[in-house]
Amino acid sequence: MSADFARVDLGRAERCGRAETVFCEGKHPSEVAEIASILRGAGQAVLATRATREHFGAVAAMFPDAVWHNRARCITVGSNPHAAPEHTVAVVCAGTADLPVADEAAVTLESFGHRVGRITDVGVAGLHRLLDETDRLRSFSVLIVVAGMEGALPSVVAGLVDRPVIAVPTSVGYGASLGGLAALLGMLTSCSSKVTVTNIDNGFGAACAADAILRLAAGQR
Amino acid sequence: MSADFARVDLGRAERCGRAETVFCEGKHPSEVAEIASILRGAGQAVLATRATREHFGAVAAMFPDAVWHNRARCITVGSNPHAAPEHTVAVVCAGTADLPVADEAAVTLESFGHRVGRITDVGVAGLHRLLDETDRLRSFSVLIVVAGMEGALPSVVAGLVDRPVIAVPTSVGYGASLGGLAALLGMLTSCSSKVTVTNIDNGFGAACAADAILRLAAGQR
Amino acid sequence: MSADFARVDLGRAERCGRAETVFCEGKHPSEVAEIASILRGAGQAVLATRATREHFGAVAAMFPDAVWHNRARCITVGSNPHAAPEHTVAVVCAGTADLPVADEAAVTLESFGHRVGRITDVGVAGLHRLLDETDRLRSFSVLIVVAGMEGALPSVVAGLVDRPVIAVPTSVGYGASLGGLAALLGMLTSCSSKVTVTNIDNGFGAACAADAILRLAAGQR
Amino acid sequence: MSADFARVDLGRAERCGRAETVFCEGKHPSEVAEIASILRGAGQAVLATRATREHFGAVAAMFPDAVWHNRARCITVGSNPHAAPEHTVAVVCAGTADLPVADEAAVTLESFGHRVGRITDVGVAGLHRLLDETDRLRSFSVLIVVAGMEGALPSVVAGLVDRPVIAVPTSVGYGASLGGLAALLGMLTSCSSKVTVTNIDNGFGAACAADAILRLAAGQR
Amino acid sequence: MSADFARVDLGRAERCGRAETVFCEGKHPSEVAEIASILRGAGQAVLATRATREHFGAVAAMFPDAVWHNRARCITVGSNPHAAPEHTVAVVCAGTADLPVADEAAVTLESFGHRVGRITDVGVAGLHRLLDETDRLRSFSVLIVVAGMEGALPSVVAGLVDRPVIAVPTSVGYGASLGGLAALLGMLTSCSSKVTVTNIDNGFGAACAADAILRLAAGQR
Amino acid sequence: MSADFARVDLGRAERCGRAETVFCEGKHPSEVAEIASILRGAGQAVLATRATREHFGAVAAMFPDAVWHNRARCITVGSNPHAAPEHTVAVVCAGTADLPVADEAAVTLESFGHRVGRITDVGVAGLHRLLDETDRLRSFSVLIVVAGMEGALPSVVAGLVDRPVIAVPTSVGYGASLGGLAALLGMLTSCSSKVTVTNIDNGFGAACAADAILRLAAGQR
Amino acid sequence: MSADFARVDLGRAERCGRAETVFCEGKHPSEVAEIASILRGAGQAVLATRATREHFGAVAAMFPDAVWHNRARCITVGSNPHAAPEHTVAVVCAGTADLPVADEAAVTLESFGHRVGRITDVGVAGLHRLLDETDRLRSFSVLIVVAGMEGALPSVVAGLVDRPVIAVPTSVGYGASLGGLAALLGMLTSCSSKVTVTNIDNGFGAACAADAILRLAAGQR
Amino acid sequence: MSADFARVDLGRAERCGRAETVFCEGKHPSEVAEIASILRGAGQAVLATRATREHFGAVAAMFPDAVWHNRARCITVGSNPHAAPEHTVAVVCAGTADLPVADEAAVTLESFGHRVGRITDVGVAGLHRLLDETDRLRSFSVLIVVAGMEGALPSVVAGLVDRPVIAVPTSVGYGASLGGLAALLGMLTSCSSKVTVTNIDNGFGAACAADAILRLAAGQR
Repeated sequence: MSADFARVDLGRAERCGRAETVFCEGKHPSEVAEIASILRGAGQAVLATRATREHFGAVAAMFPDAVWHNRARCITVGSNPHAAPEHTVAVVCAGTADLPVADEAAVTLESFGHRVGRITDVGVAGLHRLLDETDRLRSFSVLIVVAGMEGALPSVVAGLVDRPVIAVPTSVGYGASLGGLAALLGMLTSCSSKVTVTNIDNGFGAACAADAILRLAAGQR
Repeated sequence: MSADFARVDLGRAERCGRAETVFCEGKHPSEVAEIASILRGAGQAVLATRATREHFGAVAAMFPDAVWHNRARCITVGSNPHAAPEHTVAVVCAGTADLPVADEAAVTLESFGHRVGRITDVGVAGLHRLLDETDRLRSFSVLIVVAGMEGALPSVVAGLVDRPVIAVPTSVGYGASLGGLAALLGMLTSCSSKVTVTNIDNGFGAACAADAILRLAAGQR
Repeated sequence: MSADFARVDLGRAERCGRAETVFCEGKHPSEVAEIASILRGAGQAVLATRATREHFGAVAAMFPDAVWHNRARCITVGSNPHAAPEHTVAVVCAGTADLPVADEAAVTLESFGHRVGRITDVGVAGLHRLLDETDRLRSFSVLIVVAGMEGALPSVVAGLVDRPVIAVPTSVGYGASLGGLAALLGMLTSCSSKVTVTNIDNGFGAACAADAILRLAAGQR
Repeated sequence: MSADFARVDLGRAERCGRAETVFCEGKHPSEVAEIASILRGAGQAVLATRATREHFGAVAAMFPDAVWHNRARCITVGSNPHAAPEHTVAVVCAGTADLPVADEAAVTLESFGHRVGRITDVGVAGLHRLLDETDRLRSFSVLIVVAGMEGALPSVVAGLVDRPVIAVPTSVGYGASLGGLAALLGMLTSCSSKVTVTNIDNGFGAACAADAILRLAAGQR
Repeated sequence: MSADFARVDLGRAERCGRAETVFCEGKHPSEVAEIASILRGAGQAVLATRATREHFGAVAAMFPDAVWHNRARCITVGSNPHAAPEHTVAVVCAGTADLPVADEAAVTLESFGHRVGRITDVGVAGLHRLLDETDRLRSFSVLIVVAGMEGALPSVVAGLVDRPVIAVPTSVGYGASLGGLAALLGMLTSCSSKVTVTNIDNGFGAACAADAILRLAAGQR
Repeated sequence: MSADFARVDLGRAERCGRAETVFCEGKHPSEVAEIASILRGAGQAVLATRATREHFGAVAAMFPDAVWHNRARCITVGSNPHAAPEHTVAVVCAGTADLPVADEAAVTLESFGHRVGRITDVGVAGLHRLLDETDRLRSFSVLIVVAGMEGALPSVVAGLVDRPVIAVPTSVGYGASLGGLAALLGMLTSCSSKVTVTNIDNGFGAACAADAILRLAAGQR
Repeated sequence: MSADFARVDLGRAERCGRAETVFCEGKHPSEVAEIASILRGAGQAVLATRATREHFGAVAAMFPDAVWHNRARCITVGSNPHAAPEHTVAVVCAGTADLPVADEAAVTLESFGHRVGRITDVGVAGLHRLLDETDRLRSFSVLIVVAGMEGALPSVVAGLVDRPVIAVPTSVGYGASLGGLAALLGMLTSCSSKVTVTNIDNGFGAACAADAILRLAAGQR
Repeated sequence: MSADFARVDLGRAERCGRAETVFCEGKHPSEVAEIASILRGAGQAVLATRATREHFGAVAAMFPDAVWHNRARCITVGSNPHAAPEHTVAVVCAGTADLPVADEAAVTLESFGHRVGRITDVGVAGLHRLLDETDRLRSFSVLIVVAGMEGALPSVVAGLVDRPVIAVPTSVGYGASLGGLAALLGMLTSCSSKVTVTNIDNGFGAACAADAILRLAAGQR
């Protein structure tokens, strides 16, 4: 089924494991609402990322049960069944300025039916905060670690746990942060070899990668 | 236990799930052999990456069962038990020039006790070669996709399967390839949201990430 | 003939095959209108790119038949005769966010007297959408392929057709997209060797290149 | 048909208009010879680029009629029929240091069955040399313009002719040339709008693009 | 003599040949006015660059004879005696979008007591416009050449004249222009060896360099 | 006093606190020996960095008591009196590949008359190794922390101690390490605010900065 | 003790020598006020950097003795006892545009209980201004040198004194300044070997590094 | 007149003021000798830059009076008459490692018939060495200032003299020097406004620019 301005891929859930998510940047509120309508019409839950309140207004006008996640800049309508009941994903972040990206990851995971545990404000400059959480860190099945500036947190976390670690650099910082490039390069060159990395500020992508891992672990498609 | 020039971390397997791997660049052959000796003494299998024939010579003098993996530039001594019997990892690569990196990933995975399936020379410019393998691609639990130049293969593969996809950019290319940066940036900005990325030419890191996923999926530490 | 602020090159159509196009950025609306007036006075059609509604207002006040192409940010006045009747140019784009650039290419081509076919929202992450259009893709004489993010679409399209493919990177994306550099580098290092590339967001330039090819193919100047 | 290390795509000529070309970098001489053998066995002409004398030795041992193009670093075996008899392609270059890249373009075009005209050493600092060739420049159907350093030549040439201009930046230069990036950026931002660009030093790619244009112009596949 | 926020260097004219110029960015209008006041009190002419209308307002309130140069974003109060009567400086620019930078150079030169000749809109894509001015180009003592995009104009001009050529890259352009870096790199790697270069958009600096040359040529300090 | 090829600054110790050090890169062995001779003639100790065995040979031929520090690539002749007896400087490094840079720092400090404590192979991926050294880390007056790859170690160390921390990025790593730029950017954007940074691989500079701090702390010039 | 959105580290003064400073960017005014409240409740002085007047409003509503440092963009509440009575820190800056960064350093140092001496507007283009201050420069225990554009001032200052020099690049400049990168690179490659460097515009970090040095020099924790 | 591989521009002296110089990189020794032969045949002096001893051997075999300038890597044959008798050009350089570039400038100037004064090893870290030369610096008509690393010397020199200053960045340095980019950016953003800049290591270009200035000052073509 197809809106005028975009082909909505209703078969995607079948083929790739997840319904299409609406990336709102550059889309008119009415376009987002129309895509939401097509997805809901096909019985699928809606997740819209990088949304504004204007996008939410247009969606909420159609679906009163739509939810606005302010810091995450996400809209959700409806929800998916619990996907991997035995597993929890950690969303760890270094500083409070990284919270919007961490929230995008968490909202996405919950919208996909996963259980999420949050650990916040555990930057490597105050290592004891992180070490106090070691046991909890080891209880998660997958860990998404979000950090800006020098982006060292995923290296440290990956040294403490033996589960998959997905690193998300953020654009938090100034000067030599180069809009998140310093954190990105730091994560790519991590001395903890099992760390993999997403684009800068891409909490959504990290959640998608974690989702694919958890569905595999849960023996599901 | 500690060599003069480095602290060998014998407890790492316990803590992080895997024994330490020896990164040979910048190490003297005798240093590599000594670390191998400490690891073997503690009953652990040895994997040494970025090795030269000189490194291999020093190790093989001590351990006649050491194996030299030429294109992968790896040395293995001994092996680990089968880690995740129900799962196979794909190592997919775009061109024959990417084979050294793909081999490093495959040798690492096999050294870790995993089963590996190889798909080679399926660049996106000749899409039919890749599409002919669609069913096989969907049979793997995790897919490591290795590509240089524009690095588009992981995006395309991730659109065909619903399993975790780990992208490895290679330094194959010239001019605007910028030593692998073009492929790296392409993979980080992939329109297939579940792709995560390792450092350029880091086949070993991709294998470590896949290993962590498979041990989770197999319900193991 | 010469306005105060710029030399309008009326002989350009004779010499280079096409009348001068007005690039509006940095020009005052009244300057754009004056150049349009000189061109119309010499019997030439007008195409103004990177225009604002203010530019359009000034031109429309002089020429009531001026047309405003909103998403393309172009103004046209009058039109050229059909230049290459047997040929059609494809303007293919990966995502809806790339439409402004694709539209600039299409408006330019139509203003130059060419027939344009549009294919939209066929990103490589959902390959089947693109493959469904294979026959249509092969029916075009020249293909302009517009993509942001990892910029992989031109590589894939060029592998499916044997006609000239002109790639246009867009600044769509964030983080490691680096304002379109990731897509640009990806297109330059394409494994499909016949792809050539324009500047980021330069839909106009791609149309000019296609125009030169079509006039050659049509045996015209 | 398939060698052990690579899938040779014999159907490519049918599908994309040209048989596969062998890119020699990173391939063993025996591998290049084997691919050449498969292509010849299928009745196709062979073009191998980025070759060394060692590659040539291996191919010449099998095919005594193989030709070594020294400055272009290419090997050819056999030839293709004349593809577009009414058309000639210009290969223009700025300085003598650009000749290896210009030669790669010319050898490729001739191997593909095209007629080539060469114009050499017409850098923009000595404009009169270029202007003396204006009539000749206008006699070509397609122009490949090769330049290093500031890469200004394609802009100037494109202002003199109304045919397609394909710009090839070279890595000639030092310091702020940044290995060809200065020329690449200069060509991408050319004020002559119809210029399209290939990767740095990619004479082969420019020839492939010109070939697609000429086959279109000649009404052929 | 010293304002509270800055040391005004009244001896600079003696030592370096020119009174201090006021760079307005980051300075409060009242600070600019105060520096102007100190300079005028010492009998020196005032030139203020990168000014806003607010800066001009503050200066004009004190000095009714202050002049506002709108496109150049400069303020002048008073003037210097003719410095090099036998010489004229050319300010050449490629496109109308480069005029603010060209104007900054021209206003600075005139404020320093030099005669300026302007040549505008002579981009290399329309070479004949430039060639028509060859005789006039050769009549100048020093040539400042301003260009954005690929920045090729100084190379071409320097090939036509035997006088000093100072190249000024501008931030005009988009995408691969990288805010003027493409033009800057192009000018630095110019094949015309006598070209020297200033910072991006630095019309003022080019005028200062030309001024030093002209005072030398005029046998003055 | 002045050699033919360089001005040796014998008054530097008086003025800046330290005699001149000989940077050997680009100097002929005989030049290094001659400078050493001038310094020794003035009663000063000699430190030569970035030396080769050839440089050492030339110096040792004149001064039999010259010492060759192999991994540090330094030559020393004579020594300075103990400069700050109550203080010890730590030279901490992340991996064995960082040892040449760490050694350059240590040799420089010892040549300057300081006591040095070494902590090696305490990368952040194996945090327990570092934490085991916490008390020792806190016993130093100044800490030089050397790390390549993601360069996270200085951030972590600075969070454990309250003394000055000087970070030295190394060029250890590959791919996205960009020759040490990743580590450099990471250290500059450290979330531990008191970290300051030297150039890549500049162990000598870090030692000079530590020396200035210790002489201040010891109440000396 | 812990606010909802952040863990306030009250033990930090004990462990790292200084209470936590509030970095305001990305924090809501009410969050900043709440952290200030926790710190004051624990008897600690408050320093908040990168603040806006809105942040100050929220803090001043709770603590009437809060001080707003306008150019430094800092808030202070209360103060620390004099930390190193025998020492004074210089904050030297090249131009008036660098004053906000210099002020951030000075306010931080004073808030930490240090005495600060200011030297302003001593850029290297007017060397005599700097040389006139030589004796005063030599009277300081530590020198923080702030400069934008080419960032040469720290090199020159470090050649005049024998005390620790901390260089702070600023984002002052345009074009090739690249947002402060030119100054940063210049400082990192300083020919004055004892210079260490902070992030661009990081006056706060420079003050923290100076504070650690002074507390060491004063024999304090 | 024209060699097979290059067009030698004998009219260039007439048109641009100087005979063509031979850039040897990428040219065969026999080609360089042949160009030299053509130039000598037309009565012109020869200057060949970026030459090797092999190039010199080929030229010297034809012209026994050819001179090899070892550190400058230049060949000269014959000489030009004194061009500007009343003027001397300074070639100033920061460190001994910059001498090859400084020598290229000096040899070029002398080959062009100018008088050259050399000032060496006056880096800004030891300012007194430079200040001792102030009077001599002020005696030159044009100053070429060569520096690597942070490239601060031209800013300082330009603040001391009122004559044209041409800055030449060198690739001397490591790490953050980025092959001379740090020095280049520093010179472009110099706070001394009259500084203009050449490409990295381009001593030849600086000499050409100085030559054009001196011929103007001497009232010559």
